[in-house]
Amino acid sequence: MALSAALMDTPVKYSQLEDINDDFEQIDLEIIRHQHKLSKDLYAKRQKLVAQIPNFWALVFEQAPTDIDEYIQPSDSALLLTALTDMSVERFELPNGDPRSLLFRFEFSENDHFENKVLEKKFWWRRARDGMDAGYVSEPVQIKWKSAEKDLTGGMLDLVHKNWVEDPAGEKKDSETKKALLELMEKTPLGSISFFTWFGFRGRKFTAEDDAIGAKAEEELRKKRKAGEDIPDEDDEELDEDEYEYEVFPTGDDLAVAIAEDLWPGAIQYFTTAQEDGMSDIDFEESDEDMADGEEAPPLKKVKA
Amino acid sequence: MALSAALMDTPVKYSQLEDINDDFEQIDLEIIRHQHKLSKDLYAKRQKLVAQIPNFWALVFEQAPTDIDEYIQPSDSALLLTALTDMSVERFELPNGDPRSLLFRFEFSENDHFENKVLEKKFWWRRARDGMDAGYVSEPVQIKWKSAEKDLTGGMLDLVHKNWVEDPAGEKKDSETKKALLELMEKTPLGSISFFTWFGFRGRKFTAEDDAIGAKAEEELRKKRKAGEDIPDEDDEELDEDEYEYEVFPTGDDLAVAIAEDLWPGAIQYFTTAQEDGMSDIDFEESDEDMADGEEAPPLKKVKA
Repeated sequence: MALSAALMDTPVKYSQLEDINDDFEQIDLEIIRHQHKLSKDLYAKRQKLVAQIPNFWALVFEQAPTDIDEYIQPSDSALLLTALTDMSVERFELPNGDPRSLLFRFEFSENDHFENKVLEKKFWWRRARDGMDAGYVSEPVQIKWKSAEKDLTGGMLDLVHKNWVEDPAGEKKDSETKKALLELMEKTPLGSISFFTWFGFRGRKFTAEDDAIGAKAEEELRKKRKAGEDIPDEDDEELDEDEYEYEVFPTGDDLAVAIAEDLWPGAIQYFTTAQEDGMSDIDFEESDEDMADGEEAPPLKKVKA
Repeated sequence: MALSAALMDTPVKYSQLEDINDDFEQIDLEIIRHQHKLSKDLYAKRQKLVAQIPNFWALVFEQAPTDIDEYIQPSDSALLLTALTDMSVERFELPNGDPRSLLFRFEFSENDHFENKVLEKKFWWRRARDGMDAGYVSEPVQIKWKSAEKDLTGGMLDLVHKNWVEDPAGEKKDSETKKALLELMEKTPLGSISFFTWFGFRGRKFTAEDDAIGAKAEEELRKKRKAGEDIPDEDDEELDEDEYEYEVFPTGDDLAVAIAEDLWPGAIQYFTTAQEDGMSDIDFEESDEDMADGEEAPPLKKVKA
């Protein structure tokens, strides 16, 4: 354990650092709960107002910072611009559950690509049974593509969904579906993957039952750390087993957090920036390239601290 | 005004979007205050604990995410590693003033480069007189370099400080100092500038008096927006006049915010990541290169939402 070795010549124990981290985490969760309470009504007010502006959410996505924009292909943009009518992010386990769990809801008008009027994607924050690890868990969402040619994920989302139905627990048994999925993944460069593949993200393997057991284990670990007991590191090799074998969107959790913590609260600022740049539907793609140099869209009026 | 034009076919007024932004901003400020209250004691506890770990803060800086790490040159790293003994960030205008104002304090042991034992840098959040603009204001901090060869800023910080003493209001009169500063800036590529040049950042030109007047103007604007009155955009040309002519560290405010909101709260996680990577003083520079691919250091245990 390199860390304990590094602390060996000091009076500091690893558990003391972890204990402080535990306390910071509790404060973070309390802050999310407080923010949710303070801003709930304002988000509802905003939703009503921006529903009256055509293309509001498509333009917000178009002006998104790089860590979101990089996942939106030109064909995704075109679809969002013609069909995305509403978007929302909800911390759906509040007020009593985990404030980190997220629900994304997208509404679409009639379009060439798929039948769905609504796409919903949930991210549950769940712990491992040993209470030493945690992360987002999600389920593949099916999109009813109008034809194979109109499928922006090139069949990948269908295969992820099929694999999940056939083997929900991810037991790594061989199957035709898995073979086909792996083949498709191997021939698809990560950088060219459609934003809609994100709906196939699965994340960690922790079940609701794991989380309930893990919550108690975590509480025990915290008590031990508070008491100054050193706890051995978790075995890094176990981490691999916590993840699904075929993850079509490996950074799906990061993208979820970026949308929830940046795009969602900053939507009006991203929209007004788009408008001040003089963007219109016509120079849409051109502006997309202008923004591709890694710069974030500056806020309309002020830089917030 | 492109924005009003974009809203022309909708029942939405620009002032309604701005009104919602105003309310979000108030919530953000309330959240910073609340977080400060909840975490103050924990930060004090952490400071005592990590003071017992040699090189704690230098290793944290070494593992910093790209938006901080890109400003730290190898010679800065070497100095931090041998001499940085403590670091802190304080929201120094709380509890009654602006929660965005920041004080950075760095403590150093005896070293080859400068005489200072402490370097303090303040960022005041201040408004323009018209209440329509705001940003960070700072004053150049002088470093007592032991010799010209040991000056990591190549004389730039001295010139910024001299210019500030000669012309504190930034009246853009010609002077020998300004000429020398401009020449030095022109021959120094931005990417090679020392982290210590950050102590020369000046930011916006707003005075404490401007801010007091601006606070009232801002309040008036908010009332007008609440009442549904549309307010003309500020003149973009005025923005240039709000900034100093010779800014040696143009992104100094972004760096301040990144240190305050990311490095400072996440210090233990960045430190433990450094240790788990098996870093030692010897492979320090090597690891620095490994991290230069734009990836952030992963947190020790969990990804926080």
